[in-house]
Amino acid sequence: MIVVLKHDPNQAQLESLKAWLQEKNIVIHESIGHSNTILGLVGDTSKLDGDLIAALDIVESVKRVQEPYKNANRKFHPEDTIIDLGCTTIGGDNLTIMAGPCSVETEEQVVAIARAVKASGATMLRGGAFKPRTSPYSFQGLGQRGLEILKVARQETGLPIVTELMDLSQLPLFKDVDVIQIGARNMQNFDLLKAVGHQDRPVMIKRGMSATYEEWLMSAEYVMSGGNENVILCERGIRTFESYTRNTLDLAAIPVMKKLTHLPIIIDPSHATGKSWLVEPLALGAVATGCAGLQIEVHNDPAHALCDGSQSLKPEVFDPLAKKLLKLHAAMKDLEG
Amino acid sequence: MIVVLKHDPNQAQLESLKAWLQEKNIVIHESIGHSNTILGLVGDTSKLDGDLIAALDIVESVKRVQEPYKNANRKFHPEDTIIDLGCTTIGGDNLTIMAGPCSVETEEQVVAIARAVKASGATMLRGGAFKPRTSPYSFQGLGQRGLEILKVARQETGLPIVTELMDLSQLPLFKDVDVIQIGARNMQNFDLLKAVGHQDRPVMIKRGMSATYEEWLMSAEYVMSGGNENVILCERGIRTFESYTRNTLDLAAIPVMKKLTHLPIIIDPSHATGKSWLVEPLALGAVATGCAGLQIEVHNDPAHALCDGSQSLKPEVFDPLAKKLLKLHAAMKDLEG
Amino acid sequence: MIVVLKHDPNQAQLESLKAWLQEKNIVIHESIGHSNTILGLVGDTSKLDGDLIAALDIVESVKRVQEPYKNANRKFHPEDTIIDLGCTTIGGDNLTIMAGPCSVETEEQVVAIARAVKASGATMLRGGAFKPRTSPYSFQGLGQRGLEILKVARQETGLPIVTELMDLSQLPLFKDVDVIQIGARNMQNFDLLKAVGHQDRPVMIKRGMSATYEEWLMSAEYVMSGGNENVILCERGIRTFESYTRNTLDLAAIPVMKKLTHLPIIIDPSHATGKSWLVEPLALGAVATGCAGLQIEVHNDPAHALCDGSQSLKPEVFDPLAKKLLKLHAAMKDLEG
Amino acid sequence: MIVVLKHDPNQAQLESLKAWLQEKNIVIHESIGHSNTILGLVGDTSKLDGDLIAALDIVESVKRVQEPYKNANRKFHPEDTIIDLGCTTIGGDNLTIMAGPCSVETEEQVVAIARAVKASGATMLRGGAFKPRTSPYSFQGLGQRGLEILKVARQETGLPIVTELMDLSQLPLFKDVDVIQIGARNMQNFDLLKAVGHQDRPVMIKRGMSATYEEWLMSAEYVMSGGNENVILCERGIRTFESYTRNTLDLAAIPVMKKLTHLPIIIDPSHATGKSWLVEPLALGAVATGCAGLQIEVHNDPAHALCDGSQSLKPEVFDPLAKKLLKLHAAMKDLEG
Repeated sequence: MIVVLKHDPNQAQLESLKAWLQEKNIVIHESIGHSNTILGLVGDTSKLDGDLIAALDIVESVKRVQEPYKNANRKFHPEDTIIDLGCTTIGGDNLTIMAGPCSVETEEQVVAIARAVKASGATMLRGGAFKPRTSPYSFQGLGQRGLEILKVARQETGLPIVTELMDLSQLPLFKDVDVIQIGARNMQNFDLLKAVGHQDRPVMIKRGMSATYEEWLMSAEYVMSGGNENVILCERGIRTFESYTRNTLDLAAIPVMKKLTHLPIIIDPSHATGKSWLVEPLALGAVATGCAGLQIEVHNDPAHALCDGSQSLKPEVFDPLAKKLLKLHAAMKDLEG
Repeated sequence: MIVVLKHDPNQAQLESLKAWLQEKNIVIHESIGHSNTILGLVGDTSKLDGDLIAALDIVESVKRVQEPYKNANRKFHPEDTIIDLGCTTIGGDNLTIMAGPCSVETEEQVVAIARAVKASGATMLRGGAFKPRTSPYSFQGLGQRGLEILKVARQETGLPIVTELMDLSQLPLFKDVDVIQIGARNMQNFDLLKAVGHQDRPVMIKRGMSATYEEWLMSAEYVMSGGNENVILCERGIRTFESYTRNTLDLAAIPVMKKLTHLPIIIDPSHATGKSWLVEPLALGAVATGCAGLQIEVHNDPAHALCDGSQSLKPEVFDPLAKKLLKLHAAMKDLEG
Repeated sequence: MIVVLKHDPNQAQLESLKAWLQEKNIVIHESIGHSNTILGLVGDTSKLDGDLIAALDIVESVKRVQEPYKNANRKFHPEDTIIDLGCTTIGGDNLTIMAGPCSVETEEQVVAIARAVKASGATMLRGGAFKPRTSPYSFQGLGQRGLEILKVARQETGLPIVTELMDLSQLPLFKDVDVIQIGARNMQNFDLLKAVGHQDRPVMIKRGMSATYEEWLMSAEYVMSGGNENVILCERGIRTFESYTRNTLDLAAIPVMKKLTHLPIIIDPSHATGKSWLVEPLALGAVATGCAGLQIEVHNDPAHALCDGSQSLKPEVFDPLAKKLLKLHAAMKDLEG
Repeated sequence: MIVVLKHDPNQAQLESLKAWLQEKNIVIHESIGHSNTILGLVGDTSKLDGDLIAALDIVESVKRVQEPYKNANRKFHPEDTIIDLGCTTIGGDNLTIMAGPCSVETEEQVVAIARAVKASGATMLRGGAFKPRTSPYSFQGLGQRGLEILKVARQETGLPIVTELMDLSQLPLFKDVDVIQIGARNMQNFDLLKAVGHQDRPVMIKRGMSATYEEWLMSAEYVMSGGNENVILCERGIRTFESYTRNTLDLAAIPVMKKLTHLPIIIDPSHATGKSWLVEPLALGAVATGCAGLQIEVHNDPAHALCDGSQSLKPEVFDPLAKKLLKLHAAMKDLEG
């Protein structure tokens, strides 16, 4: 951490800052210039509160050199995290394809979709039982009954399930869910992050609509600091001035996350764009950019989906897409080889 | 609601859409052009799901004419909401000034600040017991003990207290808090919104960092649709590309909210800017623009504040500011008069 | 165009609006609801000024159904535009690779890079002679001498050149440049757009840092309405709150532009990210998403580049990348086939 | 400037960097930590290219301590710049009110508005002769004839005029314009900035829609480095995800600019919001926040304004507003006194 002091700082305050830092086993390198003195802080600065130091009267600004996350940091864990779900893994060599409806509606619907997407090559079933909706008047999901339907579909197809947890009071219901999804709007629901950090199911954290890479990784750090190392990141678009697409999908997140962290990164082109015809080109782009997998909405009757139908694909459109994605994933390995 | 159909729509699907709308007591006005047919929908469209209609194969786009919120809508409630806290009100003629530390640290600290800000003209005490922090390694607040300290300070000064609720599991502890604050990161924590909608304490909803006006009002609608009409809105800056200030304070939110809703609007210049020297000019600007009140961080030792110290004012700096704000508020009434 | 009237509009003003529209050969369909009357306008509305209508006292809002651009609109020109540069084309089946240094420095440098990138598979040479720099103290480019160096490199290698025009006073110097680039900062320099619309060189328009798709297409429309049909679009990242990358590359622009317009779309991953190690994964992603080509910075000594060195690749890094891109482009055709 | 080196940097490259810096009379303070070495650079670093240094293989990151602008920097020019237009000044104690139509249409219109706004308290006449329009099919302004009309209105009323220059080829026509306006879309038209830096008329630079404070000041620096010290800054809203208002007016720009620079700052609430009913509250807010003046659109027939009518006030609405603004400006001085 680098601390730039203001010109001619109060010496008593400066001594007090130095003493406080030394208590924390931080070694200080001081370089004195014409207009500013700079303190280079060496040691474990990940737990130093930069904002607190920046608030001191004598300090002009503070710059971190080390990242504020440790468990999620590739520097300290160079090997890729691979999450083992029994019948499939997330991360590593294979391409994860999570497919299914935005909302769970009926058992018939979900089982039919699960069978279809499995046949096309999907490796996991997605579906929402608890639904975050901006309007209190919109359909809020089937809740517990929805989870049961997902489990029936898992039993019928063998596909592991990923579904969203909205509040920690629902956690007991999620005990045998394969992957717990934390939605974009809850990315900084810190009590929820702590709660999923203290249980053993893998957790997929969707990037908040205006979250920076660092904040997203700090949310992963919350889960990991509780002891749960099985964290997956999912990019689903960030909010910009462009309103033609619902959000702006940030594919640079793929190589950036691969550099900064060892956790696998999944791309959700359905929510990012809000338009079903944009799913295919961006899913292909995500695979070529190197994502660990995709989350894609599939509905057998998109026009009557109870929510977010405009971004769903029909199974007969998903089928050739899934096959293309798997072929492209194989082709990318050949390109690298 | 206006539905623009694609060129040459499938007639069977069109009839099916019309029948579905008529079931919902929607009257349809059809106007047929060269390239597009337009359906004008008349009736209570606030509960129609525009996304669902937009997803239909035959539909090009959908435009709302009516707002999707009702309880929060000034059209249906033309009178200003004034929230009565016994010793003071929020909304109406007076200027609410919520002041206090970001984090509750000790009883001594909080009581001293409460006395000071009351003497300067503050009408409420703010302070965080449960703190949302981006890092799991930062101070997370005193929790329940912090709430008790706030209540001691209330007893000593008579100032009503406003403090943040982070998870619905904490709700029993907030029974005699005067105003429950929902933080920006929880603005779309819908389970939490529903929970505070079903209890009787007033609720202040901070605007999410990338929330639109409509989404913010829909969060108010969540609370109000549960039966709790005492909702306050608080603008605390939105995220933009500008990084010199922590966020960009959007003062246009004041007149826009006054037009769209009957709920009072509070401005938080401390969190919005992250710099204590920006608090005064923007607080003055907010009062002149017509806010119902302000939330301002005051700390008796900003440099040692356990969080967010860089945006806190010392009581001796807050004192002349509070007096200026009250004088300006009076002067603005004269200008209007 | 749809015009939503306010409740109970002034009838005289309404008649005056209708008369004005009819003068412009617009047919009006009126649908009267309980709270609002809606006018559906049919005819050539692309030249109607929606803002002007929205300003009328009786109007609540205006919604366009037709796009405001005509020449650039795929609806009226369903066939892809393919730009013929003699030895190569932009658009159509081949993958355009524009490579070269950010700034032209010396003849030796540019000729060496041109030879290297041609050998690797580049189809065009890029390089800046006139450089837009945020600081007046930064290197501003070699100007006319830089253009001459580019032409020498073209003669040596046969690669057509693309280079940025910053002001219309420089236009006479650009007579035999193969493609004139309009930079992101000049995307709405309307006098410049008009000027390049009245000459015969192809024009590549970089998307402004905060430009919407529609504004970008309207800039193309400026050029095309002057008579120059040879326009290329180049996405180079938009500005968001994320500051780890210089900008956020918006690959959704590829399929969106392919739907809205017949003009070819090029992706510039170098400027978008500002980091050389992000160029390869995003260039691969862009090809898989379906771009017509790429613009990539290559420098034989990136660390001493006079500007923007941090995003340049060395020729020995560009070489395997270019080969991968061409292989991937071929593989994508097979996937489609 | 602080340069953070990568772990274990190549020593030859490090020596070469140090030698290069020493040639430029930069003194280097080196502090060696466990994982990183930090170089503190002391001297005139405003002309060092941080991007260039950041591009070096051995460098992890670069942080500026000094601002990259000098002429515009308050540190080197502590006194406020006051621009003398003969009959009025911009900056200093008085409140500048620039009022007038978006577009100059007829002599009758402009003279009538000029007389009205002068009577209400405006100190300058604004009006567009050359108009930047996103569509080539929209009215582009009267051009030279518009400038002549403005001068007639100046002669009739004595109000100095401010009007936009769009291209340097028009500069000869602007010789006796009182203040030359550079529009938001041209804020980084560097050739235009250089040209107005080499002539003697004061220049008002509107902030670009996605420009940072630093970029805006660097545009001022372009003008000032050419010798023209009479620069005014004008905030007119930045682009965000919020689409209810045209842009988001950033009033924090007022105190931030007052700290960073000695140049006067003007606020344009008309363009920022795009809605005439938002002009009054935000203009009042801007005065209370401490702006040097305002630019407000006034039109005698807003509904028929040839452009941007939806944000114009009628003279009879402007009159009480101007009086309120002047009273508030006086009241703010009393508050400070």
